[in-house]
Amino acid sequence: MINDSSATSLKVQLQRKIDSKTKPPGSLGQLEKLASQLGCIQNSLSPILKQPTILVFAGDHGAAKHPGISPYPQEVTHQMVLNFLSGGAAINVFAKQNGFNLQVIDAGVNHDFNGCPDLINRKIGFGTKDYRTQKAMTLSELNLALAQGGALVDDAFNSGCNVIGFGEMGIGNTSAAALLMHSFTGIPLLDCVGRGTGLNDEGLKRKQEILQKASDFHQPFSDWDDTLRTFAGFEMAMMTGAILQSAKLNMAILLDGFIATACYLAAFIKNPDIRNFVIACHQSDENGHKSLLEYLNLQPLLNLQMRLGEGTGAVLSYPLVQAAVNFLNGMNSFEEAGVSGEL
Amino acid sequence: MINDSSATSLKVQLQRKIDSKTKPPGSLGQLEKLASQLGCIQNSLSPILKQPTILVFAGDHGAAKHPGISPYPQEVTHQMVLNFLSGGAAINVFAKQNGFNLQVIDAGVNHDFNGCPDLINRKIGFGTKDYRTQKAMTLSELNLALAQGGALVDDAFNSGCNVIGFGEMGIGNTSAAALLMHSFTGIPLLDCVGRGTGLNDEGLKRKQEILQKASDFHQPFSDWDDTLRTFAGFEMAMMTGAILQSAKLNMAILLDGFIATACYLAAFIKNPDIRNFVIACHQSDENGHKSLLEYLNLQPLLNLQMRLGEGTGAVLSYPLVQAAVNFLNGMNSFEEAGVSGEL
Repeated sequence: MINDSSATSLKVQLQRKIDSKTKPPGSLGQLEKLASQLGCIQNSLSPILKQPTILVFAGDHGAAKHPGISPYPQEVTHQMVLNFLSGGAAINVFAKQNGFNLQVIDAGVNHDFNGCPDLINRKIGFGTKDYRTQKAMTLSELNLALAQGGALVDDAFNSGCNVIGFGEMGIGNTSAAALLMHSFTGIPLLDCVGRGTGLNDEGLKRKQEILQKASDFHQPFSDWDDTLRTFAGFEMAMMTGAILQSAKLNMAILLDGFIATACYLAAFIKNPDIRNFVIACHQSDENGHKSLLEYLNLQPLLNLQMRLGEGTGAVLSYPLVQAAVNFLNGMNSFEEAGVSGEL
Repeated sequence: MINDSSATSLKVQLQRKIDSKTKPPGSLGQLEKLASQLGCIQNSLSPILKQPTILVFAGDHGAAKHPGISPYPQEVTHQMVLNFLSGGAAINVFAKQNGFNLQVIDAGVNHDFNGCPDLINRKIGFGTKDYRTQKAMTLSELNLALAQGGALVDDAFNSGCNVIGFGEMGIGNTSAAALLMHSFTGIPLLDCVGRGTGLNDEGLKRKQEILQKASDFHQPFSDWDDTLRTFAGFEMAMMTGAILQSAKLNMAILLDGFIATACYLAAFIKNPDIRNFVIACHQSDENGHKSLLEYLNLQPLLNLQMRLGEGTGAVLSYPLVQAAVNFLNGMNSFEEAGVSGEL
C-alpha cells in the first residue's frame, strides 16, 4: 500500500508524463484517465498489462423455472456452458481475438457435467432456491461462493495475471441483478427491470410483476449478507467474491454489463475502495445498466447497444485499455520528438 | 456489382446467419449491423479483413499563419510528420498495436523534407494559400490532389488491402473542416467551429470571427470544386479523393474524426453511394463532429472524448470491426451447439 501523499505525487507525475506526450493536452480523452488509473493501480509511471484473464461463472436460478422470468428455458445455461467449452460462443471468439485466458466455472448449474475436463468445478449446488418464496441460498452457501470466487482470482494472480474480467451465464440472472440493484440502491424496481434476453412488452410487464412480488415478500433485509443471499445466483455471489479479491490484489478489474455491475455494486458496498481498481468497459442495452453506472459514477468505454453478458463487453473493450498503457509507454514526448509548443 | 435483388437477398441471408448464432437476437448491437455491412461490402456471408491500412496525409494551411487559427505554430505540422516517421506519435503506437500498415504522405507541408526515405512524397505545394483573402488552391491543384489520393488507394488495394482508414496532420485544419461543413451543409458556422487543439473561450471567439469573415468573403460558391478548393488543405483534398476511390474499389472505409468526416462529407456529396462503405469509427470531442455525424446519419463506434486526429479514432476502433467479422465467421449456430430455443 502507498500512503496518501505518495499516491498524490504519483498521480501528479503520471499527469505530467501524459501531458508531455506529442498531442494536444487532453486530446486522448478517456484513454488519458485510464492511463492514469492504471499507473495508480500498479503504483508505476509505466504500467504493464499481464495475462488478461476472463472468468465466466455459470449458475442456475430457482426462480427461472417460472416462465415469466426469461424467454429461454433453464437448460440453456448448461447448454451454453458446453458451448463455451467447445469454443463456439461469443466470449470464445472475442477472448481469442484479444489474447485472453478464458476460464469457465460451474458455480452452480442445474446439470451434472460428469467431470468435463475443461470446466472448473466449483459447484455450490444445482441452482439456487426460488426467491419468490424463500432465500436463494443459505449464509454458508453465500460465504462459500464468495470464498471460491476469491480463490479463483488468487490462482489467476499467482500465475501472473494483473488484469481480470468477469462474465456470467445464468438464465434468469437479469432478474436477480434487478432485485439486487433495487434492494441495494433504492432505485425504483421498475427502473431496474429490463427485457433481459428479449422479452416483449407483455413479457416485460409480467417480469416486473413477478419481481415486485418477490421484492415485497423479502423486504426489509437485515444486512448485506441477507440481501445478497436472498436474490443472487451462485455465479453472482462468486463473481462478487472475485471482484473483492481482485481489488485486494491490486489488479485492474474489467467490468462487464448489467449483471457484473450488480455484483460490483454489492462488492462496492462491502468495500468502497474497489472503485480505484474498476474499469467500466461497456454500457449494456439492458434497462437499468445506465442508471446503475451513473449511480456508481462510472463512465463506460463502449456503448454499442450490446446485451449479451458472458463478459463480452469486458473483453471487447480490452484493446482500448491496452491502448491507454501503450500511449503512456510508447509515445514520444515533445522534447524527445523535437516538436514545438508543449502547451 | 451485384444487382438490387441479389443485394437484398444477401442482406437477408446475412441477417439469418447473424440470428442463427448462439446469442439472443440483436444482443451484439452495433456489431451485428457492422457484420451485415461488411458482408454486403464484400458480397459475402463470410467477409474477411485483409491488410488494414492507414494513410496519414499532412498539409499546411495558408490561413494558419494567422495566430487566431491555432494555438500551435505552423512548423508543428512538419515536426509531427518527422515524429510519425520516427514512430513516436499516437498513431504509430495504435497502428502498431492493431496491426495496421501506416503510410505517411506529404500532401503539401510547408517544409522541404529533402527526400526522407519513409515519407511518401505527393506534395502539391508548400501549403495552401490563405483563404481569408483568396482561394486555398487552384482547380488544377485540387484535381491533382484528388487524383493522388485515389492513386494511393489503388496502390493499397493492389497490395491486398480491403479495409482502409485515413488520418491527417495539418495545423489549422479544424478551421478548414468547419468552413467546409458550413458551406456544404448550411449548418450555422458557429455550430461547426470548435476549440481545435485547445483554444480557450477567448481564442474560440476569435477563431469564430476570423472564419465568419472568411466565409462571408467567399460565399456563394459556383459548384463542388469551387467550395472544396476554397477552404480545403491539400491533405484534405487528397483524403477526399482517397475516400471516393476506396468506395469504387469496394473497400471498407474507417472514418476518423472531424476533419476526416468533413472530407467524407465532400466525397458523399460527390457520390452518395459511398455511404455503404463507410464505418464511423468515433465521435470526436471537437465541436461540430456530433452534428456532422448526425447530419450524415452515421453512428460512431467509439465516443471517448478524443480530439487528436492522425487517424487515431479509426485505428483504435478497428478491433471492434474485426470482432464483427469474427463473431460472424467464428461463433456456433444454435444448431451446431445444440442449444435450445433459437427465438
